[in-house]
Amino acid sequence: MRALVIIAHGSRRASSNDEVRELAARVAETEHEFHDVSCAFLELADPLIPAGVEQAIKRGAKEVVVMPYFLSAGRHVVSDIPAEVAKVCDKYPHINVKIAPYLGASESMTKIILQQSVL
Amino acid sequence: MRALVIIAHGSRRASSNDEVRELAARVAETEHEFHDVSCAFLELADPLIPAGVEQAIKRGAKEVVVMPYFLSAGRHVVSDIPAEVAKVCDKYPHINVKIAPYLGASESMTKIILQQSVL
Repeated sequence: MRALVIIAHGSRRASSNDEVRELAARVAETEHEFHDVSCAFLELADPLIPAGVEQAIKRGAKEVVVMPYFLSAGRHVVSDIPAEVAKVCDKYPHINVKIAPYLGASESMTKIILQQSVL
Repeated sequence: MRALVIIAHGSRRASSNDEVRELAARVAETEHEFHDVSCAFLELADPLIPAGVEQAIKRGAKEVVVMPYFLSAGRHVVSDIPAEVAKVCDKYPHINVKIAPYLGASESMTKIILQQSVL
């Protein structure tokens, strides 16, 4: 029972948060190895990371992959997300919570940029 | 003579800006239709958008594709980047400057998220 939680920054703009929720729903509909796909936010939107990961655990996850939907390896990726994830790990020490490489680190990014730029 | 200018937000962290510059260099090395690939920043780093697009024009571009390296369709994508691009268009009315869909709008994003999450 593996869950994927996509982590976005969170915005004051509801539509930006909804964009992330819709993305998570589209990922859920794609063929993949997870039994559960959801999203959570570092700040400004619900659920926050500890609540989002905990919800996945309560839905039955024994392993959770947290995927930072961030473009650069800034403070949020390097420190803030691991700190939020650590709060859940302390509470559920028997659950394996792993943090995936952040989005911007993907080697496919160059291809996506060029795909988007064909006008 | 088409140029691609990848637009990032810009950060106080030099390493985040360098990450974007390195990405632009990797895109330049990929097979593509552009004779010139560079990056520019909305704020906090050089070159800013008007200067970056102007540099591409001075290197010979007759058409410039501006690609917003942003994940959500917030104010920066909807208003700020078009406003900065408009400054160059006013100065070079004979150059065709187009704005590509922002990165987060890519249909490939679901695939990239899943690729990054295989641990």
